[in-house]
Amino acid sequence: MRKMDVMTVSGLLIGLILIFVAISLGGSVLGYIDAPSILITIFGSFSALVTSYSLERIKGAVKIAKVAFYVKQTNAPVIIEKFATLSIRARREGLLALEEEKEALNDPFFERGIQMVVDGMEPEVIREIMETEVFYIEDRHAEGQGVFKTWATYAPAFGMMGTLIGLVQMLRDLDDPSKIGPAMAIALLTTFYGVLLANLILLPIAAKLSLNSKAEILEKQIILEGILAIQSGINPRIIEDKLKVFLSPQEREASERAKAQKQEGGVSVNAT
Amino acid sequence: MRKMDVMTVSGLLIGLILIFVAISLGGSVLGYIDAPSILITIFGSFSALVTSYSLERIKGAVKIAKVAFYVKQTNAPVIIEKFATLSIRARREGLLALEEEKEALNDPFFERGIQMVVDGMEPEVIREIMETEVFYIEDRHAEGQGVFKTWATYAPAFGMMGTLIGLVQMLRDLDDPSKIGPAMAIALLTTFYGVLLANLILLPIAAKLSLNSKAEILEKQIILEGILAIQSGINPRIIEDKLKVFLSPQEREASERAKAQKQEGGVSVNAT
Amino acid sequence: MRKMDVMTVSGLLIGLILIFVAISLGGSVLGYIDAPSILITIFGSFSALVTSYSLERIKGAVKIAKVAFYVKQTNAPVIIEKFATLSIRARREGLLALEEEKEALNDPFFERGIQMVVDGMEPEVIREIMETEVFYIEDRHAEGQGVFKTWATYAPAFGMMGTLIGLVQMLRDLDDPSKIGPAMAIALLTTFYGVLLANLILLPIAAKLSLNSKAEILEKQIILEGILAIQSGINPRIIEDKLKVFLSPQEREASERAKAQKQEGGVSVNAT
Amino acid sequence: MRKMDVMTVSGLLIGLILIFVAISLGGSVLGYIDAPSILITIFGSFSALVTSYSLERIKGAVKIAKVAFYVKQTNAPVIIEKFATLSIRARREGLLALEEEKEALNDPFFERGIQMVVDGMEPEVIREIMETEVFYIEDRHAEGQGVFKTWATYAPAFGMMGTLIGLVQMLRDLDDPSKIGPAMAIALLTTFYGVLLANLILLPIAAKLSLNSKAEILEKQIILEGILAIQSGINPRIIEDKLKVFLSPQEREASERAKAQKQEGGVSVNAT
Amino acid sequence: MRKMDVMTVSGLLIGLILIFVAISLGGSVLGYIDAPSILITIFGSFSALVTSYSLERIKGAVKIAKVAFYVKQTNAPVIIEKFATLSIRARREGLLALEEEKEALNDPFFERGIQMVVDGMEPEVIREIMETEVFYIEDRHAEGQGVFKTWATYAPAFGMMGTLIGLVQMLRDLDDPSKIGPAMAIALLTTFYGVLLANLILLPIAAKLSLNSKAEILEKQIILEGILAIQSGINPRIIEDKLKVFLSPQEREASERAKAQKQEGGVSVNAT
Repeated sequence: MRKMDVMTVSGLLIGLILIFVAISLGGSVLGYIDAPSILITIFGSFSALVTSYSLERIKGAVKIAKVAFYVKQTNAPVIIEKFATLSIRARREGLLALEEEKEALNDPFFERGIQMVVDGMEPEVIREIMETEVFYIEDRHAEGQGVFKTWATYAPAFGMMGTLIGLVQMLRDLDDPSKIGPAMAIALLTTFYGVLLANLILLPIAAKLSLNSKAEILEKQIILEGILAIQSGINPRIIEDKLKVFLSPQEREASERAKAQKQEGGVSVNAT
Repeated sequence: MRKMDVMTVSGLLIGLILIFVAISLGGSVLGYIDAPSILITIFGSFSALVTSYSLERIKGAVKIAKVAFYVKQTNAPVIIEKFATLSIRARREGLLALEEEKEALNDPFFERGIQMVVDGMEPEVIREIMETEVFYIEDRHAEGQGVFKTWATYAPAFGMMGTLIGLVQMLRDLDDPSKIGPAMAIALLTTFYGVLLANLILLPIAAKLSLNSKAEILEKQIILEGILAIQSGINPRIIEDKLKVFLSPQEREASERAKAQKQEGGVSVNAT
Repeated sequence: MRKMDVMTVSGLLIGLILIFVAISLGGSVLGYIDAPSILITIFGSFSALVTSYSLERIKGAVKIAKVAFYVKQTNAPVIIEKFATLSIRARREGLLALEEEKEALNDPFFERGIQMVVDGMEPEVIREIMETEVFYIEDRHAEGQGVFKTWATYAPAFGMMGTLIGLVQMLRDLDDPSKIGPAMAIALLTTFYGVLLANLILLPIAAKLSLNSKAEILEKQIILEGILAIQSGINPRIIEDKLKVFLSPQEREASERAKAQKQEGGVSVNAT
Repeated sequence: MRKMDVMTVSGLLIGLILIFVAISLGGSVLGYIDAPSILITIFGSFSALVTSYSLERIKGAVKIAKVAFYVKQTNAPVIIEKFATLSIRARREGLLALEEEKEALNDPFFERGIQMVVDGMEPEVIREIMETEVFYIEDRHAEGQGVFKTWATYAPAFGMMGTLIGLVQMLRDLDDPSKIGPAMAIALLTTFYGVLLANLILLPIAAKLSLNSKAEILEKQIILEGILAIQSGINPRIIEDKLKVFLSPQEREASERAKAQKQEGGVSVNAT
Repeated sequence: MRKMDVMTVSGLLIGLILIFVAISLGGSVLGYIDAPSILITIFGSFSALVTSYSLERIKGAVKIAKVAFYVKQTNAPVIIEKFATLSIRARREGLLALEEEKEALNDPFFERGIQMVVDGMEPEVIREIMETEVFYIEDRHAEGQGVFKTWATYAPAFGMMGTLIGLVQMLRDLDDPSKIGPAMAIALLTTFYGVLLANLILLPIAAKLSLNSKAEILEKQIILEGILAIQSGINPRIIEDKLKVFLSPQEREASERAKAQKQEGGVSVNAT
């Protein structure tokens, strides 16, 4: 069901390749790999991250980070269409009939919402429960992004520390001028690693997670409004109008077109 | 209908020309063009951007960015005048008469609002639907600006990476002192590109998009308030007063003047 | 009516003189004036500003900026005193009598508010209209400050670009060591100009505009509350109490003193 | 009544002494004092501050800044105890009896609140008036802190300008290499002054003012809630419970202990 | 009851060890320890902190900081389970029966809430009191984090000051070129200390405190909602549903599993 997001992955790869090419144009790439520098920049900043969050939460964040590399399908139009079906059925057969539809939803949040309607809970209670849930989902997403953003601030700082360590070393033995250049070159490597880690990997992942989170929260919002609209018994046409305001003009047009095609198709079938 | 915004374009061009002049005063401009430096700064930061947003969204943002180069006409006074007409007609012939006016509005948001009034929907429902729509329009605008702002943070970072790569290369072969200068000159070019890209192109576009977005949201707000005012049946005079608070004093004066001229004209016609 | 704000102007002048003195202590001031550097820093950052805002808005902002150089008189106590008079008259002769007072107010916002009360509009409608107007006044003020803040971020960036251009030029002809110093001196000038422009001129103007805006919004808030209080017909004493909470303790004391003096005067006149 | 805050003053002094010691370890302190550098950093940034705020406001802020050097006694527990007495008296003798207690409060805000209760004003009006007052007190406090925060951003910027001026001077006469070192040393002094002024003096004062402001606003909040609770006539026990939530656990324990001691004392007296 | 948080401590230790290793790879670690540099960076920034907060508050913050090194157990599922028991008992035996359960709660906030229900206070009053308390708990937590964040901004600033002092010293005696290197090495040490202190110790502690605070506030929020739900007498099933929205999907699953096991266990016992 989940598809690898070619763009995210290739963005990362192309970025790395560009860096690689830029380096190799000027000489050997090997000279840019220095174990102690990697140690201090990557592992140093990571240990500051562990102090900040505990390993468990970081594991959780890394698990979430994988999400950034998969396509987040915009389900919003699908969900709205689903509500069109649900609202018509609810009108014809009553709210209890929705229980049968519940199984096919494949979304625990959606299911729980429908269940609360079937159970006959008060609309204000349903809204309160669902809004609290959406709020805390958003909160947990933000925490996941926070891990990467925090790392992205530690990485250049540890890079700078590495450079300072290297500079101090170099400055203390200025006797052999021929060593100054290479020593300083290595000292600068940690700063390079820190900036690279932050700007090519950590910040883009945080940005992608934030986008995916926003898309998911939008879906939850549509589900919340849709469920309350069905419960209140308003006209299915108005429900659809109400939910479509969440869509972008492009999505709206696409969904109109899809609907028109289906109806045309339906008519031709009838005509046969 | 859309007019190229001479100012935006010329701001950009004059900025580039100034940079060009400043460079050429000191020597050949060619020395400032270096393919690998361009590669790492522009394409490197762009690939981080692709990781952050996916190519599709970036394409969308670029499409929106074109808007920044066109004049965003302030339609606010025109819209308010339109409401003067609409409210008078609604008072005389009833709300249903508005359906005929709908076609001439040329704004799907406006049309949908009028349609809801014609359909006799509850004012709270109309407000809720329209406010949600305005909120998500603003949200999508913000996302478009976000692409440029994010790029503007990656560009100098990749510029700095390029400079670090160049410095490390230079420092490792310090044998030939005559090469130090030119090598370092090239190393600094990427930082120059990054700062230029961010401050002359990306940040100004983001700022312009934000201004255009605010103007559009203001119009939507006026439409929303106007539609609800018409539905509530208040006096057309008060509707106009209510909507004019959205205008700046300059716009207000201009609109008063325009009105006065028209009425004068009207009177003179009557007098003839 | 408007008085030049000696402090604002002299702050700026003294700042410039200090810089001038600091420069001239070390040698000729002429060496600090370099046409291409001025070109790239001031005009370069200005062209980025034009791209961001369009020339029209910048003109508007500059017009507003002049306000920063004039004394913004705190009218708050005067306004509160005016309301004392208005509320007493409204109590004695009815709300319609306020129409006569309207002319003397010299503030279109105040006048429109009184007019709405005279016209017998609902208090909620008046509050809504006036609050919306205050919100958009604040918004336009923020936009004016925004122009200067944005310029203040572009100026040092273009200064840095100028320095980078200069450094690259210098590094490419390292043959003549005697030229290195002067070339680098000129390269640093753009950074100096950028920091100076931002910190001595642009940011202080933005700060001053923000203060003036806050004072004006406070006055509008007092007018809004005062008008609604008069309409609701509460006791003039309570209206004054209600409005005085907007004043600082110093202003409150000053206004108490002024009142006491007046009453004393009044008594002595009566006594004569 | 006000006590010098030993900690604030000694923090500042110890900081200055540490800097002094660090300097004197490496040589003469006199070499770190340079009149033109002080001129440009301190007075230059101050003149930008005058442009931003006008001298009058800065004087006000400096007057407020003195507060940062005095102990801000946490009156919260005392105020809550006061309300215990007031609420019991109000219950026994009626709200009018509070007028006699008013004099002993020593806090104009508290007095005005009690007076409004005595005057029989509506609770919503009292809340509105008092909340507006608290809002504007907080606002004026924020303005005072703002002066120091703004200065703290100008100071390092003017330090940097001074360094740039010095560097340009030095670079233009590179003929005598023996002068390079001392000239650059003096150039760096302004940056040192700017960072010192901002981080040892201005930012700590702004932080301290912010803490004192928060403590004062908390007290006002307690007074506001207490006055409305007394007016509503709820049980004195519940009033105390309601107000104690504003206290930290430590303050709460301390206040419980104090109360227990008093009651014990009271019992023992009765027992004698 | 409290367990040392192995991760937080080992993050810190591993970070320090990595720095140690990186340093010792290049030479003696002793060369990186310089008493005056430590003095100015650590104690200098600490004295600015004392000026900002007063020693008492810093002591309090350090006491809180210890919390960062202990495991913050997520009690949320336990609390929700507790409410399952409480709500069933309240339904069977009335709200007064909750008084007996109070003792076992081990949380003054929880106890006070139950007591207010037992005392028969109005739900709005209970909500107001408990929400105010949660707000001020959060506020005090934020103040504790603030101490570390503020220190983290002073530390690199004092490091920079130390480096500037060292540079000025070095530049003034350029006579002996052999001393330049070591002098500059020592000058850079303070910057190194400042960045290290901020990024390996202070910022991670502030981040950890913020996480712990969020977890505690979440618990308080659950307690608040649970107590009001019990008082309102809703079905224990719905209370559980309502409170579970505060849990992450993982916690929810874990709690479902635990419950299922318990019920199974109960059944098998019955079956024997």
